[in-house]
Amino acid sequence: MPSDNPPKRYRAAELVDFTDRLFCAAGCEAEKAMAIAEHLVEADLIGHTTHGLAQATPYLEELQSGALRKAGEPTLLADRGAAITWDGTALPGIWLTDKALLLAAERAKRHGICAVAIRRSHHIGCLSVYLRRITEMKLMAIIACSDPSDATMAPYGGLAPVFTPDPLALGIPTDGDPILVDISSSVTTNAMTARLRREGKRFPGKWALDAEGRPSDDPAVLAAKPPGTLLPIGGVDHGHKGYGLALAVEALTQGLSGVQVIDPTAFGGIESYLRETSWLARLCREAPPVPGVYAVRLPGQQACARRRAGLAEGIALYPGTMPGLENWAMKLAVTLPSPIDG
Amino acid sequence: MPSDNPPKRYRAAELVDFTDRLFCAAGCEAEKAMAIAEHLVEADLIGHTTHGLAQATPYLEELQSGALRKAGEPTLLADRGAAITWDGTALPGIWLTDKALLLAAERAKRHGICAVAIRRSHHIGCLSVYLRRITEMKLMAIIACSDPSDATMAPYGGLAPVFTPDPLALGIPTDGDPILVDISSSVTTNAMTARLRREGKRFPGKWALDAEGRPSDDPAVLAAKPPGTLLPIGGVDHGHKGYGLALAVEALTQGLSGVQVIDPTAFGGIESYLRETSWLARLCREAPPVPGVYAVRLPGQQACARRRAGLAEGIALYPGTMPGLENWAMKLAVTLPSPIDG
Repeated sequence: MPSDNPPKRYRAAELVDFTDRLFCAAGCEAEKAMAIAEHLVEADLIGHTTHGLAQATPYLEELQSGALRKAGEPTLLADRGAAITWDGTALPGIWLTDKALLLAAERAKRHGICAVAIRRSHHIGCLSVYLRRITEMKLMAIIACSDPSDATMAPYGGLAPVFTPDPLALGIPTDGDPILVDISSSVTTNAMTARLRREGKRFPGKWALDAEGRPSDDPAVLAAKPPGTLLPIGGVDHGHKGYGLALAVEALTQGLSGVQVIDPTAFGGIESYLRETSWLARLCREAPPVPGVYAVRLPGQQACARRRAGLAEGIALYPGTMPGLENWAMKLAVTLPSPIDG
Repeated sequence: MPSDNPPKRYRAAELVDFTDRLFCAAGCEAEKAMAIAEHLVEADLIGHTTHGLAQATPYLEELQSGALRKAGEPTLLADRGAAITWDGTALPGIWLTDKALLLAAERAKRHGICAVAIRRSHHIGCLSVYLRRITEMKLMAIIACSDPSDATMAPYGGLAPVFTPDPLALGIPTDGDPILVDISSSVTTNAMTARLRREGKRFPGKWALDAEGRPSDDPAVLAAKPPGTLLPIGGVDHGHKGYGLALAVEALTQGLSGVQVIDPTAFGGIESYLRETSWLARLCREAPPVPGVYAVRLPGQQACARRRAGLAEGIALYPGTMPGLENWAMKLAVTLPSPIDG
């Protein structure tokens, strides 16, 4: 089995090219393969490693099984100008979401706001990745995502899994780096839970309930039979908050993926909007920190810094990611990327 | 000083009439007085007592001081069909929000979605109250609210208050009672903090930080000099979630009040939407409860039950509320409401 110890570093462009060739070799249409490749590498660049190239392996498996479709277009189900619905027909969620956001951005410039709901989308990856691009157009983006078929979170006070971690992401342009909010309604995500379980680690707090409803820091309770559940944000103390947020995300997505773009120009004007958001960002960054904290950070601040560093110095993928891809590269006869030092 | 011990019960209609007369006597235009009266009594009806008639006293004080305007219309600043901006010119926030939601509902039926931002609105009361009315039209309502001038919550990891509790409310129609989500981005609200402090009580958990950043269950730390802050949802353990939500609310409101109405008919259709939300509601209600919990509840479920009981049996106001109003009734020469038992 190939090893990636010590970890090699790769240029982002090299990884995009490699991933693109992998997905093309797996039969994906060119535009879709490139959208997936750019997205997954971006996720690794900003440090969202559970949703980066680590996802390429399950995607490739599902392309092979047919659960993820290789070619085609979404079907337009409804269009009222500011409200659009697509059937994604199990096409790559990343490609669909990119496309939906661009359409929503175009329509938001006309109507002030536009929402696109996508039925039957495949996995849409790392929400923060989409946000930055939209904020670069000085627009606000909101992405919500749910998948009732893969529920791991119970309603607050309950034991049965009803919700996925139901993330809500919101990109806010400022006069500097954007604010990139990306929060799940549960204390932690399925991907993080699976990773900690594989590595025999614990949650930093009691973030789950076992099947009997006892708070637990063991990610393995999610895989027990019967399974435990992830706690909603607020945990045992005030989990009704995360429960409420999950219901909001479910409603916004109507059980689907939902994107929304808002053009501040259509409301109070872009100048006053940026003045407002930049002032807020400054207030947060400059707030005196609590003892033990170096400085208050804005959501997205670390992602933007990591991205700049990764573009300059290359990316060291999360341990185990490249070995998984090397197996697929062999299978699909795709040349491996060259590491920076190699 | 008048006493309300033992507490008297009042018919909701009697309280609405009394409150309407109080605000008319204080000089409010008729439509505004009635909007305020209906809203505050509705808040008490659903059990949101910190935002019910307990608010009448500060409102009346601010009418008198001029901080709350008695008459006039909002100024239209922008209108793109699906995106509207008003200057509320310090008019009653309840009346403005009612009006904004009705306009948004009308426009959502045409465009599928509509957002109204209101600049310079006075206090908008209890968000859940608005939601029910919109869900009765089988529409979804989203209300976000922020007020940078009354900050009590610090960014996660910081000590300086930057945010108000920044609530987000979302009304979801089902085939039965609606789901009414109304969550602040902080673990608790300013109104609840003030009430517990007045009554010498504690928070049920460490929901605040003192001025040095030590977690505390004492609501008095918010009024200390220098003041402490409310913790965002997730508290010390994962407060970056509530911090993210607060930033999202700030962006959605652009530092203003923001309402949004979505018409499910414009997306996948109202039948499939209601099927989806009703199925989700059922899954939550029927989830087996954790030990010590009688049954899993949906947000809004208790409010709807309380409302039905209050309409049938009358309302016992929160202790201290009626004495405060009796003083104003005397001052404004308004007849007191008759309690049910005479």
